Amino acid sequence: MSFNTFGHMFRVTTFGESHGPAIGCVVDGCPPRIPLTENDIQPFLDKRRPGQSRHTTQRQEPDSVRILSGVFTDEATGKQVTTGAPIALIIQNEDARSKDYSDIKDKYRPAHADYTYDVKYGIRDYRGGGRQSARETATRVAAGAIARKIVPGMNVRGALVQMGKRTIDRTRWDWAEVDKNPFFCPDGKTAVELADYLDGVRKSGSSVGAVIEIVADGVPAGLGAPIYGKLDGDLAAAMMGINAVKGVEIGAGFGAAALSGEENADDMRMGNDGKPRFLSNNAGGILGGISTGQSVVVRFAVKPTSSILTPRRTVDRYGNETEIVTKGRHDPCVGIRAVPIGEAMVACVIADHYLRQRAQMGAGPSWPFERLVPPI
Amino acid sequence: MSFNTFGHMFRVTTFGESHGPAIGCVVDGCPPRIPLTENDIQPFLDKRRPGQSRHTTQRQEPDSVRILSGVFTDEATGKQVTTGAPIALIIQNEDARSKDYSDIKDKYRPAHADYTYDVKYGIRDYRGGGRQSARETATRVAAGAIARKIVPGMNVRGALVQMGKRTIDRTRWDWAEVDKNPFFCPDGKTAVELADYLDGVRKSGSSVGAVIEIVADGVPAGLGAPIYGKLDGDLAAAMMGINAVKGVEIGAGFGAAALSGEENADDMRMGNDGKPRFLSNNAGGILGGISTGQSVVVRFAVKPTSSILTPRRTVDRYGNETEIVTKGRHDPCVGIRAVPIGEAMVACVIADHYLRQRAQMGAGPSWPFERLVPPI
Amino acid sequence: MSFNTFGHMFRVTTFGESHGPAIGCVVDGCPPRIPLTENDIQPFLDKRRPGQSRHTTQRQEPDSVRILSGVFTDEATGKQVTTGAPIALIIQNEDARSKDYSDIKDKYRPAHADYTYDVKYGIRDYRGGGRQSARETATRVAAGAIARKIVPGMNVRGALVQMGKRTIDRTRWDWAEVDKNPFFCPDGKTAVELADYLDGVRKSGSSVGAVIEIVADGVPAGLGAPIYGKLDGDLAAAMMGINAVKGVEIGAGFGAAALSGEENADDMRMGNDGKPRFLSNNAGGILGGISTGQSVVVRFAVKPTSSILTPRRTVDRYGNETEIVTKGRHDPCVGIRAVPIGEAMVACVIADHYLRQRAQMGAGPSWPFERLVPPI
Amino acid sequence: MSFNTFGHMFRVTTFGESHGPAIGCVVDGCPPRIPLTENDIQPFLDKRRPGQSRHTTQRQEPDSVRILSGVFTDEATGKQVTTGAPIALIIQNEDARSKDYSDIKDKYRPAHADYTYDVKYGIRDYRGGGRQSARETATRVAAGAIARKIVPGMNVRGALVQMGKRTIDRTRWDWAEVDKNPFFCPDGKTAVELADYLDGVRKSGSSVGAVIEIVADGVPAGLGAPIYGKLDGDLAAAMMGINAVKGVEIGAGFGAAALSGEENADDMRMGNDGKPRFLSNNAGGILGGISTGQSVVVRFAVKPTSSILTPRRTVDRYGNETEIVTKGRHDPCVGIRAVPIGEAMVACVIADHYLRQRAQMGAGPSWPFERLVPPI
Repeated sequence: MSFNTFGHMFRVTTFGESHGPAIGCVVDGCPPRIPLTENDIQPFLDKRRPGQSRHTTQRQEPDSVRILSGVFTDEATGKQVTTGAPIALIIQNEDARSKDYSDIKDKYRPAHADYTYDVKYGIRDYRGGGRQSARETATRVAAGAIARKIVPGMNVRGALVQMGKRTIDRTRWDWAEVDKNPFFCPDGKTAVELADYLDGVRKSGSSVGAVIEIVADGVPAGLGAPIYGKLDGDLAAAMMGINAVKGVEIGAGFGAAALSGEENADDMRMGNDGKPRFLSNNAGGILGGISTGQSVVVRFAVKPTSSILTPRRTVDRYGNETEIVTKGRHDPCVGIRAVPIGEAMVACVIADHYLRQRAQMGAGPSWPFERLVPPI
Repeated sequence: MSFNTFGHMFRVTTFGESHGPAIGCVVDGCPPRIPLTENDIQPFLDKRRPGQSRHTTQRQEPDSVRILSGVFTDEATGKQVTTGAPIALIIQNEDARSKDYSDIKDKYRPAHADYTYDVKYGIRDYRGGGRQSARETATRVAAGAIARKIVPGMNVRGALVQMGKRTIDRTRWDWAEVDKNPFFCPDGKTAVELADYLDGVRKSGSSVGAVIEIVADGVPAGLGAPIYGKLDGDLAAAMMGINAVKGVEIGAGFGAAALSGEENADDMRMGNDGKPRFLSNNAGGILGGISTGQSVVVRFAVKPTSSILTPRRTVDRYGNETEIVTKGRHDPCVGIRAVPIGEAMVACVIADHYLRQRAQMGAGPSWPFERLVPPI
Repeated sequence: MSFNTFGHMFRVTTFGESHGPAIGCVVDGCPPRIPLTENDIQPFLDKRRPGQSRHTTQRQEPDSVRILSGVFTDEATGKQVTTGAPIALIIQNEDARSKDYSDIKDKYRPAHADYTYDVKYGIRDYRGGGRQSARETATRVAAGAIARKIVPGMNVRGALVQMGKRTIDRTRWDWAEVDKNPFFCPDGKTAVELADYLDGVRKSGSSVGAVIEIVADGVPAGLGAPIYGKLDGDLAAAMMGINAVKGVEIGAGFGAAALSGEENADDMRMGNDGKPRFLSNNAGGILGGISTGQSVVVRFAVKPTSSILTPRRTVDRYGNETEIVTKGRHDPCVGIRAVPIGEAMVACVIADHYLRQRAQMGAGPSWPFERLVPPI
Repeated sequence: MSFNTFGHMFRVTTFGESHGPAIGCVVDGCPPRIPLTENDIQPFLDKRRPGQSRHTTQRQEPDSVRILSGVFTDEATGKQVTTGAPIALIIQNEDARSKDYSDIKDKYRPAHADYTYDVKYGIRDYRGGGRQSARETATRVAAGAIARKIVPGMNVRGALVQMGKRTIDRTRWDWAEVDKNPFFCPDGKTAVELADYLDGVRKSGSSVGAVIEIVADGVPAGLGAPIYGKLDGDLAAAMMGINAVKGVEIGAGFGAAALSGEENADDMRMGNDGKPRFLSNNAGGILGGISTGQSVVVRFAVKPTSSILTPRRTVDRYGNETEIVTKGRHDPCVGIRAVPIGEAMVACVIADHYLRQRAQMGAGPSWPFERLVPPI
């Protein structure tokens, strides 16, 4: 991960600012002959797109993705497929309203990256958040749609499990509920309460944080690498690399600190399929940086939107103390839209490790390994 | 981060297994003419070394580090300094007891990486944990000692803030306490209680997790990079890359999810030094992936040691269901020794970003930038 | 260099096929606040553009570059400058003639990459060469225009020094001649002869190779890194990465093999500027992988265009033996257009090393170093 | 390739100076379960070792390699095999004579890297060439011995084809001759002449350059990647990264510039094995950056040893003009020992691409692809 490129074998490079002509990404290293059209990508962008309920920012953009390269018609099937060449994806910016930025162009909004961009670069595109805008994440969602096609049998899903101080009741977890409410909440009862709660937050001009959980099923055992190329290490970087994320955990996560060794250990038995299975999943599907074959479970905390109506004390770039109020279209809970983004990033990380695993291992060892019986 | 190399400009490559002839690392990209001898590194290794109290594993090794390359005498000062060439560090393994591994060589210890290494590689060095042993982290501590010398004015310190369900009282935080108890606990009163608590855990053959907090002071503003090369992203990967770590957070971390935007925002005023200052540090010193100039605050959760005396259900590599008890020398709380390791990894990440920042920015912009007065 | 990304700190990722909707690149790591508009890039694209004389392919495209991101108006100067964010450049494909590809879609043109793309990927975009088309190099030229702005005082120029068996007379070398003939030839007299010669080659439906020389003046001493990150190593990879290049040499190059140690050594004296100077430049400005401060001199050989009118024996992708004639618009000497491409690649490599040098060294040592007098 | 690490999936990091305690390397990414002991590596080191004839430097070192990590006994076979963990190799420095360096510690030897190291780092280990010593290449040879085991069926051999102005007669090429003379010369008749010639060069205190050719047979078609990750691009960087190399070419190389398209094209027919074959190999086994399945042919030029007995004009690090004579043990033709080094580097590059190919392609397409008959 360096600057704006992410991944080793499945590599994503993104570009673009909120109010420039376009945002986009280049996906490099994708295996060839995978069917791919805009229709494979657009649904994930639609899921992330703001303005779909009163609970997210009212910026209205179709976010239509266009594939510029890396695909061609497979003569045998007539389908458009990847060619192994880099896949460039582009999304035009259409709702870049011309507005008055005089209030924010010199002032630093607390909890935004305004100050740090200025300190680092000495210049920043302040329009709509520029490069720091959540808009950049649309390109990650697009890349994630391609990543999902690389690992056979993998299914990556996400859900909101906490908003502000309200947590879901995990006994009511139902994946089918996630698509039925505007919060991606797997607990329908809590979702109803969240609607009222978030209305109140929005009306008061405040904002609130959230915790998102991503679950990747169908991840083969053996992905990852020890020491510095750990699957959980790369997942942590990927989640922490999403705007406004302040914490990441795998499986039992911070809760593991309070467990005893007996409580934490996931016992093993043989499954009906002749492969080992685990009796619990405190590991979150990863041991020693390598996938176990269980579901990979990642959770991350999103801070409350920094854009609020309450005036905050700040300074401007000339060293004057001042106050600022962030007006304009904003999500009262950016965590909601982090669900499809988190899914996409998890898919990208696992796809990258899937290819890396194949590099070092080829077909790899397969359980129960070469020797079916112990040596005598 | 790929396989066993970590960092972009300050690069650390580690090697070695618990019971092989030696472990070590190669540190590449270190600036030249920095004074460096074994004496600069050894104290950090001594701090990490097990067997120093009854609370850590009784493996006894001097862990003496030797510098094999990358240093030379500076004629002007007579001191040994770095030359800019790669610095190889080596630590001999001396206490690799010959013991009977027949019980573990084919069985998978729950919550260990035995199974995942076997699934991935089809072979593993089972002696003392092999490559997955915590022993590998000694090389990271050694590399961290070099990293500490790269960023002028930086001071990286760590502390244990939770063991099992017991958390410290942060109002009693005293850095001076950290060196006075075997737990690196900044709250002396809690440290006394932890001694009894951990004795109980050890005697019962159980284990317990912990939460560690690392604080880096003196980190210049402007380090990091947006999107995928974020300072917090790289810190998250580095912490999650430490053995047994299951969660990472920056600043307010998971707690930020429960905050309102008003509570979370760190207001800004001008400081006496003519630079902006923040009135709080929920950001943990990082906004938009870039350091703010405040203390960088990282916290991570360590799961309980997997090696416990209670028999656990498992399988062997031939597909037989069986039981296993982990005997031998083990830490009842591996989290304790994670303190110097976490410090080292934080130092390495920040040193890497310090060099990367210099690459892109040179001397960089300096507050209050080129223009002292606003344009009229 | 991995797949379609090039460079470490100054990173270029390219995408696009000859007959897709567009080609482009993302330039990442560019320092901020460098003035940059399309007008800084377009002249270099114009220089590379085909169809400007009868000696290059008649494909007619304006090759207009558009900057999609990474720039913003600097309020202090009113100029558009880089922001440090990734700079995406895009060039629409406009002259992608709809033509009949039935003859080449299944047949492998000898000396083209048709067969190797098919063997590697199992699919290829055969239209106009697809990803293997020389058209891709336009994006490198665009990136090079940015690279030129990074190293203060650097001037990168290229020239054709051999076409077929005809070499220039180096005593007549005049940089001013390069822009006066369609071959970028620094020897005006030879250029006149080449016009006739190439007319003959073109009319006979044949093609011819060339040797190109790139000279970078104003490269500071100290760029490069020993062993694997050598400046000449990266230059070699960059030149060899240009389509149709089969050889690269630095300074005396292959000629050095025939020299004695006495002939090859570049003696040193003190210059009037108080810095060491070399009395000759067999080193081509690089010793031990590190720049000497002299002109960096790189030469590369371009094979003859593979597209010729003489029928060649080949096979098709179904295993049938057949013949093929390459019709259509083609350069009789692709080496001509390799001049601006080689310049761009040299500029990119040196810019990358300039930033890498700054990372490890900061301001670096400056001659005559810290000590003006020898120790007594 | 960055600093002292080389490769993407098969990664080699080297360290050590000529007169430090040891040199070595870490090989990361090696597939597991490949039989490996020191006996697999030592023969290649022995081939490179100086002091074996009067024609190479008389430095006497056993150059015994020791494997420190990454191997374990495979229970099934009883053989020591790789585990997939990083393989550290170390070679002690034993013949580091204590000598008087007063003449060279401040003076820059022309054509050496003394000046550039000093300008870059402000300090250098001048003993025996320090990091710039050819001794470093022993570690590459060791890594190459591992690389050779990764690509099934690959055979990498090298030969000296030119020394000074004397070139071999290629019609007399006999690989069996290479091991019969101290020059690795495949033309026995020329080898006899070279012995006399080099005696004369050595006795006169002069030195001479050479051209080395490396041929890799058994390289599967499809290795490489277009644009920036080209197989020939990586080979060029690897060859140019060997000390004293000033030029690299593939196949017809610089000679291709003088060919017509008809002469250069390698025609294709179907082979008896049902796969395409080429009727010539001007391509040197690589088209479009991707291997064709033919022999990969790489040639590189080595400049004459810079250490000669003739006094040369130079300056010292204090800015004084002076003269220098390089005394001590030196090869009159360093090109000789470049043969095993070039072999090793070619093996490493191809092994890396073999693993990278497997990452993106898996088992990959296989000729004649999915469709045996053309669509009607």
